[in-house]
Parts: sequence; C-alpha cells; structure tokens
Amino acid sequence: MNDIGLGIAGLGTVAQGVLQILSNNGAAIAQRSGCQLRVQRIASRSARDEVDMLGAQFSTNLQDLIEDPQVDIVLELIGGEDAAKDLIHNALLAGKPVVTANKAVIANHGDGLFAALQAANESSDLRFEAAVAGAIPIISAIREGLVANRFEHVVGIINGTCNYILTAMQNDGAQFSDALATAQELGYAEADPGFDIDGIDAAHKLTILLALAFDTHFDFSALHVEGITAVTAEDIRYAAELGYRIKHLGIARRSEDGLEARVHPALIPQQQLLANVDGVLNAVLVKSDAAGHTMFSGPGAGGAATASAVLADVVSVAASLRKPGADGGKRTAGAPDRAAEQVVLPISEAHSGHYLRIPSRDEPGVFARVAEALSRHEISIEAAIQKEPDAGQDVVSIVILTHTVQEAKVVAALEEVQDLPQVVGPVARIRVETLD
Amino acid sequence: MNDIGLGIAGLGTVAQGVLQILSNNGAAIAQRSGCQLRVQRIASRSARDEVDMLGAQFSTNLQDLIEDPQVDIVLELIGGEDAAKDLIHNALLAGKPVVTANKAVIANHGDGLFAALQAANESSDLRFEAAVAGAIPIISAIREGLVANRFEHVVGIINGTCNYILTAMQNDGAQFSDALATAQELGYAEADPGFDIDGIDAAHKLTILLALAFDTHFDFSALHVEGITAVTAEDIRYAAELGYRIKHLGIARRSEDGLEARVHPALIPQQQLLANVDGVLNAVLVKSDAAGHTMFSGPGAGGAATASAVLADVVSVAASLRKPGADGGKRTAGAPDRAAEQVVLPISEAHSGHYLRIPSRDEPGVFARVAEALSRHEISIEAAIQKEPDAGQDVVSIVILTHTVQEAKVVAALEEVQDLPQVVGPVARIRVETLD
Repeated sequence: MNDIGLGIAGLGTVAQGVLQILSNNGAAIAQRSGCQLRVQRIASRSARDEVDMLGAQFSTNLQDLIEDPQVDIVLELIGGEDAAKDLIHNALLAGKPVVTANKAVIANHGDGLFAALQAANESSDLRFEAAVAGAIPIISAIREGLVANRFEHVVGIINGTCNYILTAMQNDGAQFSDALATAQELGYAEADPGFDIDGIDAAHKLTILLALAFDTHFDFSALHVEGITAVTAEDIRYAAELGYRIKHLGIARRSEDGLEARVHPALIPQQQLLANVDGVLNAVLVKSDAAGHTMFSGPGAGGAATASAVLADVVSVAASLRKPGADGGKRTAGAPDRAAEQVVLPISEAHSGHYLRIPSRDEPGVFARVAEALSRHEISIEAAIQKEPDAGQDVVSIVILTHTVQEAKVVAALEEVQDLPQVVGPVARIRVETLD
Repeated sequence: MNDIGLGIAGLGTVAQGVLQILSNNGAAIAQRSGCQLRVQRIASRSARDEVDMLGAQFSTNLQDLIEDPQVDIVLELIGGEDAAKDLIHNALLAGKPVVTANKAVIANHGDGLFAALQAANESSDLRFEAAVAGAIPIISAIREGLVANRFEHVVGIINGTCNYILTAMQNDGAQFSDALATAQELGYAEADPGFDIDGIDAAHKLTILLALAFDTHFDFSALHVEGITAVTAEDIRYAAELGYRIKHLGIARRSEDGLEARVHPALIPQQQLLANVDGVLNAVLVKSDAAGHTMFSGPGAGGAATASAVLADVVSVAASLRKPGADGGKRTAGAPDRAAEQVVLPISEAHSGHYLRIPSRDEPGVFARVAEALSRHEISIEAAIQKEPDAGQDVVSIVILTHTVQEAKVVAALEEVQDLPQVVGPVARIRVETLD
C-alpha cells in the first residue's frame, strides 16, 4: 500500500466533497487502487470549524502546499482565475502533479500550463476531469476510452443552469425570465446568472473538449458564444411542433474546411437521446470513426459529483507515483501535437440548419417574398408553418426550417428578409443540429 | 516513441476492425499515446487473403503469439471459450499482458485468470473493456472514472439484439416472432438466436459488471437469467399506457440484505433516459453515492466499435510497458478484495415492482378476488387497468402494477391468482424497475 499525501487548496463545496468522500470511501479507494490517500495539508483563506479536515494541517498560505515535502499531489479547488493559475503553475514547476476542477484556468491558460508541465520533471502532471461535465468521465473517455478514434464531433449539454431553464420552459411553457427566477429560487442559477446564461461557462468547457478531441490550442477566443436569453416560449413551442427540442449546446466539429467551435441554443430532433437529457443534467455526445455515436450523461455540477471526478484524477495520478521512475503519470497529460494548429473557422463559415421565426403582417404573399429571399442565397426550405395571429393581434409568425447551409448565406438572406415592408419585428434565428 | 509489438489471435470481424483502425489512425494513436503499435504476428486457423495484415507474420498456431519475443501484448480475438481461455492463461503465465473482447471467458473463468495474473510477473496484465457494451468505456468508468464511489446499482441494456427486437415491437406493434424474423433478416440476430434472446449474452456481461462494481467473484451461476421470448405486443402496449417501456436489462444492485444480480425484461418509466435507448444501442446506468446517476450509451457490437474498445485497452497497457519497472499496468487489473465474498441473493429475495397481466373471464368480482390474493401477501397495488375483451372474445385482461415487494411474495400470491376459477390462462409477470 502506497501512502499518498494530498494538499488541498480551498475549503469550498468541492473541497468539502473531496473530504467527505475520503471519509466515507477512503478504505474502498485504497483497496481498489493500492493507494492510501491521506490529506496532508489544506490551505484556504480561512478555516471552517464545521468541516472535518481529516487531521490535515491547515494554513492560509497556498505556497505551503508546494513546499510541504509530504504533499505528493496538489488539488486546486479554490476556483477563480489568477491565484489558481499561479498555484498550478508553481506546483508543476516544483515537480508536483496537480488535479484541478477549474475550467476557466484550463480554458484560458491551458497552453501555458502545459508548457510548464513539459518543462517540469517527470513526476509532474496536470489533470482536470472535473473541469468538464462534473461527475461524467468525459475527459478520460476522449483521451483514453476513445483514443483509437478520429473524432467527428463532440456536442454537449454542458451547462446545467441553461438546461434547467430550457427544460422548465419546455415543460411549463414559461418565458425565459420566469424560468430564470425559478432557477434562482431553487439554487440552480446564481444571483448574477450571466456567466451561465450568456454561455461563458459552457464555452470554457467547450474550449477544453475542443483542444482534447481535435488537438487544438486552448483558445477560448476562437469560439463563437451565445447564451439562451433570446430563446422564447414561442420558439420552444414551434420547435416542438416541428419535432425538435431546444437545448443549449457546445459544439466542436470537424468540417471539410476546418473546425467549428460554437456555443449557442439549437434545435435538435426530439427522438435523439441528447434531446431527452433534461433538468440540470449534463451530457456529451461524441461521434468518432470507429466507436460511432457514444453518449455520456450525468450530474454536471455539485460538490460530491465534482469531487468524484477530482478523486478519479487523484487515484490515476497516485497510481503513477507508486514507483520511482514509473511513467504512467504523463501518459495522457501532454498535448503532443497541439502545435498542429488546426484552424477554428469563423462562425460565418459554420454549417447548420436554421430555424427562422419571422413576425409579419397578416397579408397574402409574404411567405413568397421570404422564400424568394432565401432562394436567392441558395437556401432551401425543409419545413414551414404559418401561425395565425393571436386574438386581437394582426401579426403572424412565419416559421421556417432550412436545410443545412453556410451561416454567411443565412445572415445575408435575413438582412433582406428583415427589410421586407411586411416584416414587423426582429427575425428570430436558432441553429438546427441533426447530430448525425 | 516506444515500439509495441502486438500479437493478434483471430482474423474475424473484431480483429479486422483492429487492423483497419491501426491502418487509418495508427499515426494519431502514436502521437497521442507515445506508443507506436505494430502488428508483429497474427495467428488464426486460416489466413484470409482479402485482409491487409499490415506486414504481420502469420501462423496457424496460437502458441506462436506467446513464444514470439517481439510480441509485447496478446490480443485474444478468437471468441469461443476453451481455446481462448487457454491462450489467455498461458500468455499471462508467460508474463505477457492480454487484451480480450471475450465476455464468456471472463464471466466463466475470470477468477482463475485473475489468479494466474496474480501469480504472473509484473509485466502481465488482463484487460477486457470490449467484453461489455462494445465501444462504451464502461469498464474504465467503473474502475477509474467512478473509482471514488460506492456503487448502488449498475443497470444496463447490454444486448443489442434484444433491444432491437423490443424496440421494433414497441414501434410497430409487432409480436416477438415477427420482430425476431426481421432482426434476423437485417443481421441483428443470429440464425440460432438463443444466446441473445434467452439472456445468456447479457448475463455474461452482467457477471463482469457485478464483479467489478461490487467486488464479487466472477460467478455466472449466481445470476437469475430470463430472456425476452415471453414478452408480448400486448404487454408493451399496456406498459406504454401506464407510462413505461419494456427493456431487457442486466441489473446488479446492492440491497439491504445482499446483492441482486438478474437479467430479465423490465418495465422502466418512459421519461427515464434509459427508456429512450432504442434499436441496437447499448447503455449502462450507474448509480453511485458521489457521482449520482451517470449513463453511458453507444453501439454495443460491431467490428469497428468493439475494436475501438480493444485498442483503448492496448494503448493503456502499452503506456505501462514503456519503461522497465513501470507499474501502471496492473493498477486496475487486479481484484484486490474479491475475496470479500459478497452474497448474491437468490431471485426470491429480490425486490422490485411487478406488472401483472391476468387473462380472466369477463365477470364481476374478478378484480376483487385478485386484489384480495395480493393483499394477503402484503402486496399493494400502484395502478390497474381492466381491458375490455376484443370483439368476439370473452376474455378480459386485468393489468396491475404493484409497488416494490419481495419476489417470493409475488410468486406465492400468483399461485393463488392462477388458481382462481375465473382466470383462464397463464398470468404474465414482468418486473418493474424505477431506476431511482
């Protein structure tokens, strides 16, 4: 039995989850892995009397985790960005393997941290299973379980707040603002919800999935990012009529021209398994050449679920530390061909279908004018419904699904549609993904 | 870059899938893993001229794979049982790591093979990701991704033939025999389908999942096994009316009294994600204390999908072989506390809800007599529907869902129900699983 000393940075919900799991299941983990995980030291801004620290030493100085020779693995669980990045960087350079749940740090500083890892000595390592989709072992699925595959796309519901809100809108017919308020009451959305509902959190995770599946750099800025604030109850209802559900997706996809990397709401066919992942659940659908379509779902957040993923990384790193000179540790840690610099395309070159909702006056010939504008830009219509005006209203909604087309063409066509005299309000557009 | 020599036993669809993936993606695998996988030798009963063996040596003697010093890893892909078992056993004792896709061998001989592994030297290893649910990395999810968890249940749709047939019955209203015939025409069922439709194949896989999640011995004989031949189109229709779908499940579950391990058709709530896994897809739902409900789905069979899982194991083993003395290899291979001998309960002590379809004469008071019989055995009714007789018939179907109850009580109650004078045919019973 190998004794492995853990140094935990932070005492928030994830750190408490780690301590709780070690308290409950530490003996079973030791039996399965051959590694006795011992919390040697915890560093946080302030102690919490109510937390059982399992006999660990405590200090308020993060650097103590690096300097304590009995800390074999550093767990970065403080969140935030700069202090976390510095801690990870310094630990790696000091030769200590790091496990982190910090998606923002990996998405924004992954390249620099991996460079530090490459410069560090053999025992160093950097793992971040918990950074994407909580308890779901999606990082190891991409890096290990599907290692023999060429990836075609990775498409995920990777923000539980957005999924909760869209599911509530679907089930209750609620408008966005009401569903958001409910989510906030239930603790599924923050008081300041922008990080989730504007798509930033999902984009951090997609940056990581993109880098791993397609060997790109960690480049958050290359992504096209939209949130869910523009989705209306009407859109969800019309989508359902057409056989679709609206989900907030992170999409990384190989196309003929390069890579697509985008975060936005999308219509997906309701018979797809991914369309049935509801509430706060996360799921990631991977299409690869040999394994076909595989999907991984589970809780995307929460202290215990995230801690489960953190400890999976810890056990994996610990096993590689069992013998001096063992080499398991960095096996999956590097990014050997990330220098290949695959091109992430601008959103204008992405391809997908489009759902269009066009508010227009209830006059004959409007649909024909819209169809002509689309046709001029080589956009073909897959389905269309025209909704009668509500009582007392004289505005109809023309709802159109297009076949797959380059985004730039849709944008150009919609400029013309928007300028039609019969169109009386902004045209709503949501992409359609078949997930084939 | 480490050069790893592979020795492949067999030249069937999975072996051909491995060769095809190595041909397509070998360079990418090398870049990701740091291991150049080279097919050193193939052994099979006869050569196949149409297969590109990637320059490997060929022989008809399996033993050559073990004796060739340039074979670093043996891939057992011949299927069958005795010859495969002997090959694995001999390879392990010779210190060669083995990767196999053979569920029957692991389910029936896993204990002996792991004993051989323990007796073998350090470099030996035994991996079998491909033995359960094809491309889905469920073995590594249980052993590694969820290593920090205490498992509550592992429930899977793990036979694609059964799932295809039940899905067809659900979608088309077809009876079992017609759906089977269609599956056979399409190649989703064998000419001799018993191995799949009687549940044996699923039971092999469940034996493995049970052993890994609950640290039991590999003991196929401890399982209760039923196939899908008794499921009727009527049962599927009534289940749908009650909000359920019928799936063929492998269930391994911890109860208060011990472990349940059973393979049988079951009603599951239709809003559950698992209920929406259709066609030949496989999926495994895992409930564990920290990660909660996680689900993994994908193709459960097919040469390429199975080969994807085989190569995931190969890469993992290869990485551990990169340095002499490295210890990564056996990290997850052992079964350290399998000696704990957890008890698998007899089916009579299993707990679940039950769907009952009782064909009876169309007379007043029958339902009351049935309800009394159930009540005498402390079985409470959750829902019931009584179907009018079809035109020209005088037999009604009384359909009842019970709350969760010990199996023995239902069996005893149904003996009484079956003996009621108004009951005119065999009572159908299918278990109900809430998956909570």
